[in-house]
Parts: sequence; structure tokens; C-alpha cells
Amino acid sequence: MVVMTNRIITLTTDFGLRDPYVAEMKAVILAISPKTTIIDISHGIEKYNIRTGAFVLASAFQYFPKDAIHVAVVDPEVGTKRRPIIIETEKGFLIGPDNGVLALAANKQNIRQIREITNQKLMLPKVSSTFHGRDIFAPAAAHLANEMPLEKFGPKISKIVKSQFAKVAKKKKKLEGEVLHVDDFGNIITNFSKKDLGRLRIKRIFDIQFKEATLKLKFCKSYAETKKQEPLTIIGSHDFLEISINQGNAAKTFKVRDGDKVTLYL
Amino acid sequence: MVVMTNRIITLTTDFGLRDPYVAEMKAVILAISPKTTIIDISHGIEKYNIRTGAFVLASAFQYFPKDAIHVAVVDPEVGTKRRPIIIETEKGFLIGPDNGVLALAANKQNIRQIREITNQKLMLPKVSSTFHGRDIFAPAAAHLANEMPLEKFGPKISKIVKSQFAKVAKKKKKLEGEVLHVDDFGNIITNFSKKDLGRLRIKRIFDIQFKEATLKLKFCKSYAETKKQEPLTIIGSHDFLEISINQGNAAKTFKVRDGDKVTLYL
Amino acid sequence: MVVMTNRIITLTTDFGLRDPYVAEMKAVILAISPKTTIIDISHGIEKYNIRTGAFVLASAFQYFPKDAIHVAVVDPEVGTKRRPIIIETEKGFLIGPDNGVLALAANKQNIRQIREITNQKLMLPKVSSTFHGRDIFAPAAAHLANEMPLEKFGPKISKIVKSQFAKVAKKKKKLEGEVLHVDDFGNIITNFSKKDLGRLRIKRIFDIQFKEATLKLKFCKSYAETKKQEPLTIIGSHDFLEISINQGNAAKTFKVRDGDKVTLYL
Repeated sequence: MVVMTNRIITLTTDFGLRDPYVAEMKAVILAISPKTTIIDISHGIEKYNIRTGAFVLASAFQYFPKDAIHVAVVDPEVGTKRRPIIIETEKGFLIGPDNGVLALAANKQNIRQIREITNQKLMLPKVSSTFHGRDIFAPAAAHLANEMPLEKFGPKISKIVKSQFAKVAKKKKKLEGEVLHVDDFGNIITNFSKKDLGRLRIKRIFDIQFKEATLKLKFCKSYAETKKQEPLTIIGSHDFLEISINQGNAAKTFKVRDGDKVTLYL
Repeated sequence: MVVMTNRIITLTTDFGLRDPYVAEMKAVILAISPKTTIIDISHGIEKYNIRTGAFVLASAFQYFPKDAIHVAVVDPEVGTKRRPIIIETEKGFLIGPDNGVLALAANKQNIRQIREITNQKLMLPKVSSTFHGRDIFAPAAAHLANEMPLEKFGPKISKIVKSQFAKVAKKKKKLEGEVLHVDDFGNIITNFSKKDLGRLRIKRIFDIQFKEATLKLKFCKSYAETKKQEPLTIIGSHDFLEISINQGNAAKTFKVRDGDKVTLYL
Repeated sequence: MVVMTNRIITLTTDFGLRDPYVAEMKAVILAISPKTTIIDISHGIEKYNIRTGAFVLASAFQYFPKDAIHVAVVDPEVGTKRRPIIIETEKGFLIGPDNGVLALAANKQNIRQIREITNQKLMLPKVSSTFHGRDIFAPAAAHLANEMPLEKFGPKISKIVKSQFAKVAKKKKKLEGEVLHVDDFGNIITNFSKKDLGRLRIKRIFDIQFKEATLKLKFCKSYAETKKQEPLTIIGSHDFLEISINQGNAAKTFKVRDGDKVTLYL
């Protein structure tokens, strides 16, 4: 049954854009649900980096309309017993391997139900052991876009694998946290939220410590409050504290990577 | 005449995504056929590498709906007498230069007819000598999406330039073949098909020889049957034998590139 | 009010494709204007390089249908007083920061009016200080696609910041110009237009001088008039003189970058 819908399906993978893989997923989706609008979130997730995939998905997710369907495939254990799942939340659907890549986005919302995808009629006729993005997750998303009821996909399950993110530890006069993500500009996105930091005074100086660098940085409202190539801290577009260099690359300069520890002295 | 259609046009090029070239092709398509859904297969084909373009197109092609139109532009001879062509097959249409980039996809299906594109009314008013993707192939695809009859594009031709792919040579106790493609994960996709290999026994050890490495590799059903960073062989998602490293990069490790020779000792 | 339209919105940024930023802009657009067709011009503009952004936008722009809406975000001064603007031209709309990134495209056409975007009701409820692409420009484009009248966005303004492009200086027996853009093939696109060069005789030899190389180059009609790896000059697909190497990379070979000076001896 092909229903003509206008649902959005998003894709987040570590496949890169050189190979036919992303297009094969889109072809499978459009063959099942021709009216779907497919939006790439990212195909440039570092290979096998579930944590970065989870962060990127969770960041973009919240801006999409309510009934959007989000497929995330960072899947180093493809072909093993790790489960393919669909999570229904109050803000949309998440589809992918049960390895944590969906968990951060899911936990930002109320989860309504979780299903394991077991119904082979809703997969491609031949399922490879290396590419469930094309053979299981893309068809699941397309059938869901066609209003296939959730209970058709497989049994309810109650727990999913968590994402590997640390919580901020608040200690006397310091916060211990981690780098959520280094973006393409070299901005260092920490997990210190606005709330963790209390009321921030503009131009206040923070001491910030990374593995290979300790810095005194001014808290700014815009990059341009500093000179070109000067470092700063700022509340970024996802409401976390970021360390940046005005028109420079902070992560390269301070040798910081996704997941690194970071300490902020209040 | 603008007909409102919902056809899919795919694009495969070596243009990269930094420059305006891909967008110019899409603009030309949408100006002629506004309802078309445009899907990128890849714009990251190695520059001038017709063979890789042919492989990527032929891989993705088969997953698209039947009436999709596939444009491939890897075109080192642009502006010379190499012919611009349209191939009608039983599974869709292929448009591009007659240099082999379309041939692998075409030969996987029954070819119904081949036309040389000569009708200047179906090109942009001004055809540059360096960018036929925008000036000839994109408008051809868009007019075809608008149901322009094939005979309007130009005369029938009977032969096209072949793709440069070797056949597998079956010798006593060995198979000689080549590397079809090294993907972005570093998976080495050989041209040994499931059929070439006969019945494969899981956990069987193969001797595999590349130019700079000879390996004893276990045949696996999933990457995770090996330890992290351990090499393996596996039937990949296009039903060819692949050499991979679990969460590593086999092509870099064994110094293998597209087109390299590979020998498998049975 | 959600109006169902079929307008095209294009995006040109220096965000890259690894991060969630481009998808967040698309999500915001589709939440406001679900039927919009979004086309990426480029997200691979060199970081903070307003000039390259302006060139890429102006090149692609002219091929899109008349009522398309073009958003360009290369925005090193985000969060300061540089103005967010909408330019209405006779060939479409341009939206972005008033820093020159829109000016080259705008000046190729008749400008009808320019508006500063000040109406907070047409922005996201919460405007960050680092990501106006998502919070101001994407919603503005989407509301415009929904036929929101221009006067709603903010007051008319009369002047915009110019693009940083040099004019060609015609001197006795030579032309002094600059490199508009080095493309992904390594083609060196100069600002010498067909008109600057007068009537070009095929096979004529030009003396061309870059900072680190002086060359005698043959004027060709197609790359293939030279041998593989041989340099040449040619009128490129945007009607400017380009210096190329047949199946090679001229910019790497001659050490040339965007904005470099170039002298052509007639």
C-alpha cells in the first residue's frame, strides 16, 4: 500500500557522501513512500562514533516538526544481535540501532513507546549483514511515513542502551564536565549548560582547563567582542558554554577533541 | 511546456560540493521541471575517475523506482566529440557523456534504446565548452521528466563506450579479479561475486593477495565476529566479497586502491 | 498562518556538512513553510570567507527561477550590529548579513528594495548570539516563501556593504585582475570577462603572470585540445577566463589562491 504523505524523514549517518550508501537509503525510502521529504542531518559523523552521532541528532531533532521521522545509523555492531528499534516520543519518531545513538534525543522528550523491529515484511526482501541502514531502517522509516501502525513493526521493549555522556559534576568552586562536540569551526562545545553556570556576568573571566591547555577566558555575548584570533567563552546556539577563537579554530589551537574532560573554575 | 511531474532525477558527478556547479544543475532542472525530486547519488567521485563513477551509479541505480532518470557527469573529455547520450533501459533512464560512466548500470538491465542528444532546443540557449552537466545533461533530464518523447532528443545510436572493468578469471585453485571500489570506511570491494565463490563456509580462511600485502582472512557473516581492528572477509551489501577491518580502515592498512588487482586462493 | 507554497529556498554557508547547523536551518524552514523546496548551493565556503561566498552565490543564483529565495550565511560578525537584510531584485530575493556576501549577486540585477530585518515576530522566539542563520535568516526566508509582505520584516534601507572584488585594470598591452575563485578541480577562475579580452583567437598564446609563476598558455575551446597534464586557458562556464590543466590541478601546480592578483599580457 502506497499512501501519499508529506512526512519528513531525516538521516544521520557516518557513511560520508562519496559512496552510494546514502543514496541507496533514499532510493529505498522513495520507492516505498514517494512523497516523503528527506533531509540530511549529517553524513559526516566520525566513523563508528556513536556519541557524536547522538549529539548531532539530538541537537537538530528539536527544530523539526512534530511528526518527523529521524533515522540514525552509526552502527559498528551491524549484523550482530544489537536490536533495530523505533522510539515514539511526543515530538516524533527515532529509528536506528539500539546502541545509544538515539538515546540522547529520546531522553530530551517523553518517550511513549519503544518497539524492536522484527517484522521482515517491513524490511527489504534480502537483508544484508553489513547495511541495515538500507535494508531495515530506511524501509521502516518509509512504512512509518505511510502510516503503518507501530505495533506492526515488532514487540514492545522497555529499555534502550544509554548514550555515553557524562553529567556535570559540581564541586566546590569548580565544574567538571566534558566536550560534547568539536564543530567544523573548531568551536569546543562543552556540556556546561546555562543553568550549570548560574547568572553569567558579561566580561567575567573564567579559568578553563583542558588536558593540554589551561586558559583564562572572557565570557562574551558575541565573537566580535574579541579581536580576531583571540579566544573567548560564549553561550552557543544549543545553550551550552563554548570555547571559541574569533575567526580561528579553538579545538586545533588547544588540542581538544570530542569527549575530552574540561574543568571550569567558577 | 511545463508539465507538473513527480519524477526522480539523480545526480552522480566528480564536481565536489564546494562550488556552485551542482546547484547550477539543480537550478536548471527545477526551472524546466519544478516538481521533480532531485537526489544526489554522489558528487565525491574522484576527479576524472569514470570507473568509480560507473561503479557508484550502478550500485545505487537498482534501488530507485522504475521511471527514475539518472544523470552521471564524470566527463574529462567535455567539449570534444564524445557524444552526449540518453539510454532507456527497462528500469529507468541514464543520461551523460558516452565515455563508459553509464555503461555498467546500463548493462545490468535490458537496454531498450540509446539516443545521441543533438537537439539544441533541449539544451540551454548557450552551451559552454566546459560544463555540459549544466548546459546539456541537466536540461535533457528535466525535459525527459516532463515526458518529452525520446525521439525528440536526437538520433538512435547502437553502441556505447564500455566501462573499464575486468572480469574475474577463474584459474586452478585461484580467482583473479580487481578492486571495484574502496569505500569511505576503507572497505575493499572486490569484483568476486557470491556466485564466483560458490558455497561459502563461515569461518573458512582465505588467502588473499594484493600488490603490497598477502593475507589469511576469515570469512565472516558480520564485522563483529572479529575483534576490533582485526581484518576479515565478508559478503558486502552489493553481494561482492569485501575485505574489511572491524572498525578500522582496510584499504589504508593494506595500501589498496580502486582498480588494483586482487587474487583469491580457494 | 501556514500557506502551502512551492517556492525554492537556496542555502549558501561556510558551515560544512558535519554538524547539525544546516539541518537546523532546514528544520526551521520546513516547520514554517512545509512545501518549500530547499536546495543547497554550497556549505563548503571557506570559513569566514565572505568573498568566496559572494562569488559562489552570484554564480549559481542566475540559473534559479525568478521567485527563488536565496539565503547566504558567511557571517564572522554574527551577534554584532551588522544588519540582517532582505534584498528584493527583479530575479528573486537575497537574505543574509549585510557584509557583502549578498552584494555581488544583487548587483548583477536591478535591486527593487532593501529591508533590514527587525521584526522579532518573524524570527525564532529565542535568538542566539552565534547562529542567526537558524534564528533570523531561515525563518525570514520561510515567511517570505509564505508570501509575507516585505514591509512586515522591517524598515527600508538604501545602502548595503559592497563585495570585495577588484575591477579589471586595462593598461597598455596588459590586463590586471584577480582570481575570483579556485574551484575543486583546481581551475583558476579570473575576473577577465570575455568582453575584457576582445575577440579571442583560438590557439593564441597568452602570457599570464601569478605571484609565483609566469606562464605562456594556449587559448583553447576545450580541455582536450591539450595533452593530459598540459596547462591551458579557456573561457569557463561563467564566461570568465580560466587557467586549467587538462585533468590536473592548476591552482596547486601554480600556487594560486582565491583573491590573488593576475596579469595577462595581450
